Amino acid sequence: MTDVTMDKIVSLSRRRGFVFPSSEIYGGMGSTYDYGHYGVLMKNNIRSLWFRAMVQERDDIVALDSAIILNPRVWEASGHVGGFTDPLVDCRTCKLRFRADQLDQSSCGRKPSKRPGETADCDLTDARQFNLMFKTQVGALEDESSTAYLRPETAQGIFVNFKNVLQLARRKPPFGIAQVGKSFRNEITPGNFLFRVREFEQMEMEFFVPPADAERWYRYWVDARFDWYLKYGVRESMLRKREHGEEERSHYSSGTTDIEYLYPIGWSELEGVANRGDFDLTQHTQHSGTKLEFVGEGDERYTPYVIEPAVSIERIFVAMLVDGYDEEVVAERDRTVLRLHPAVAPVKAAILPLIPKNGEMVEKARGLHEDLRKKHVVEYDDGGQIGRRYRRQDEIGTPFAFTVDDQTLEDDTVTVRDRDSLAQERLPIGGVAAWLEEALARPWRTPKA
Amino acid sequence: MTDVTMDKIVSLSRRRGFVFPSSEIYGGMGSTYDYGHYGVLMKNNIRSLWFRAMVQERDDIVALDSAIILNPRVWEASGHVGGFTDPLVDCRTCKLRFRADQLDQSSCGRKPSKRPGETADCDLTDARQFNLMFKTQVGALEDESSTAYLRPETAQGIFVNFKNVLQLARRKPPFGIAQVGKSFRNEITPGNFLFRVREFEQMEMEFFVPPADAERWYRYWVDARFDWYLKYGVRESMLRKREHGEEERSHYSSGTTDIEYLYPIGWSELEGVANRGDFDLTQHTQHSGTKLEFVGEGDERYTPYVIEPAVSIERIFVAMLVDGYDEEVVAERDRTVLRLHPAVAPVKAAILPLIPKNGEMVEKARGLHEDLRKKHVVEYDDGGQIGRRYRRQDEIGTPFAFTVDDQTLEDDTVTVRDRDSLAQERLPIGGVAAWLEEALARPWRTPKA
Repeated sequence: MTDVTMDKIVSLSRRRGFVFPSSEIYGGMGSTYDYGHYGVLMKNNIRSLWFRAMVQERDDIVALDSAIILNPRVWEASGHVGGFTDPLVDCRTCKLRFRADQLDQSSCGRKPSKRPGETADCDLTDARQFNLMFKTQVGALEDESSTAYLRPETAQGIFVNFKNVLQLARRKPPFGIAQVGKSFRNEITPGNFLFRVREFEQMEMEFFVPPADAERWYRYWVDARFDWYLKYGVRESMLRKREHGEEERSHYSSGTTDIEYLYPIGWSELEGVANRGDFDLTQHTQHSGTKLEFVGEGDERYTPYVIEPAVSIERIFVAMLVDGYDEEVVAERDRTVLRLHPAVAPVKAAILPLIPKNGEMVEKARGLHEDLRKKHVVEYDDGGQIGRRYRRQDEIGTPFAFTVDDQTLEDDTVTVRDRDSLAQERLPIGGVAAWLEEALARPWRTPKA
Repeated sequence: MTDVTMDKIVSLSRRRGFVFPSSEIYGGMGSTYDYGHYGVLMKNNIRSLWFRAMVQERDDIVALDSAIILNPRVWEASGHVGGFTDPLVDCRTCKLRFRADQLDQSSCGRKPSKRPGETADCDLTDARQFNLMFKTQVGALEDESSTAYLRPETAQGIFVNFKNVLQLARRKPPFGIAQVGKSFRNEITPGNFLFRVREFEQMEMEFFVPPADAERWYRYWVDARFDWYLKYGVRESMLRKREHGEEERSHYSSGTTDIEYLYPIGWSELEGVANRGDFDLTQHTQHSGTKLEFVGEGDERYTPYVIEPAVSIERIFVAMLVDGYDEEVVAERDRTVLRLHPAVAPVKAAILPLIPKNGEMVEKARGLHEDLRKKHVVEYDDGGQIGRRYRRQDEIGTPFAFTVDDQTLEDDTVTVRDRDSLAQERLPIGGVAAWLEEALARPWRTPKA
């Protein structure tokens, strides 16, 4: 079994242009990353598979896209202005700041050679609370009245639109509102690759239910989201559900379950599902003066409870890279392969002319490429010897490769090579599009142990 | 011909939940908007059609997704820290700020009843330059060293990754890098619905070419982008190309053409295509110390020129709503219809049981709905009388409606109604999926004058 370290994932990501440190030519921008071509394609797939499961395939969830810079009163009501903080201490000697609850992982700024935890030389202040929201000023005036925040989560944009959706989308509980978009947190100790980054893309869904049904829907969403990962090929042995103990939960939550993945750094949160009760709608009702409740027929009237499955694309991205990463020896050569689910793979198929200088082969391969890319992201690749091209496609997780060779010129068939099994078969070139359609629709299971 | 005013577009957008003012329950957030269900679906379509044309269907363009908060030195090099400004004046009396170049559109803050331009009572300071970038602080320290900016454009994230893409994606000019993502500008006088907003979603592509070929590629991209709008149904009579005069162009540009649309407020920029020369790569080479140039075989070595087609989803969104908006009288009843290209329409088809209380009709309609939504966003609608449902679907631009009626129960056929022509025909229910696939692939032209 391949030992998948974070270093291997970071290295492959960089080598193949999935993701790399941002602003590199300027020395980087602490724990910020830019996504290259394959990273963008893979993120697009993850986003659209989530959207498909949460919106397109359901009757009871609608989409929303709220602004990143909302009215700042939203964050007072939500409790973020007052309480979205980490405890920090200043060092009077080295002038750096540390998280008071992570001193054992910090090292002195004056003596960076010291090991984490050895901050004994530091002259630390008492801890004070540091707000994790990025602040900015909106408009021409630079004073308190113009202070605004970059949203630290997309959820609040949903809650403040609850009434709009009730009215405009003619909904009644149970129903949900789904949103995908960037959120920002001024993390003091970002790190661990894409794990804790200052800007990230959230996919959150707030599901509004009658209070009496909240527990049932909470369980439903924990299971539904868990199953979504299985559907897209993540190994069940690498997933677990972990229910938070009472002391670990947010004060408003009556139940939270993390779907955890066994990352190289250990079991960590992949997605969280929380029963948020009526906390959010009640807070916004109080602060805005607008009643956020459901009024049904007769004397039915209540503030719905909210079940929230929330995840970031980054955590799914890393989990799927880790889950897919494999190394093996084939015909006495090492091969690295990303065994991604075909729906997640950035490129669905490679089209390869065996001999790139052969005009007839190029013409056939180009024709096939033109045909296939009307529907899918496929890649024409004529760079280098065929074995090298196969290995490149393996590393970016391309599930199928169609090779145009000598025999193609005789009988108009091509070879299709399967990324996982390495099996090869021949297909009529005219049947490739239909074959690919069917192959991409097949259930897929990883051959990894 | 329908008189399409901005008010009508704003009103329809709100009524049907395409887009509405943000943070409404807190009194809004000046010129910021949230997108509802149909707005999200329509934006998703615009984004993916752009991506398809710019990346998926081409060999010479790769995708990128860079961070929103880049290393601040990026914005020094690009000239944004120094020069991305509007001239502002303060009023010593009413304490407000105005754009010095738009005083004729401003009115006194103490006397808001005064008409724009009547700022004579105001005691104005000299103009000073106000930077349009949103500032924030990254990390725990709140001083100059931690100042960072929200990107005012996605383009710079592309330029600073030029070398990465050259290496990782094995490219040589001519090639392009495409990016979609949010940008932010602290506009002093935002307004005109989605026209000038503080956060917006840009779709930019930087195309790197040998300097000698720049003029040719500039013309190529002006035409290619113009044709893209025609392909998705925008009327040619509402589009024009307007080349900037020398005095209007940015100092680094040797050619800029706006593709303009005849919005209700008049001809305005929809998309801009600029020949940026080697300005950006040269700036970043100087500021970063990293040579951003192309080194070919032999002694080939040059700094590529850049051709940039840049547009925001918001401007396309409004142009397509305006272009599609139509009112007509049908059978003595008014009807409002959004004649959107089927690829742009948020919902591809509605599935309607004629009599929502008829269990057999519901079952057939549900079955059809389940089948169609595997591939497309479709909508099951059983709310109200059939005419009302048709009108609702017309207003959100749904091109086709399949109705399950009495005859369906006899012969398993359904009625398909065409949004534009109102023609109805009957189809076997088993053939609807294939019929829809074919109908969505057909070229479409608006019947609007």
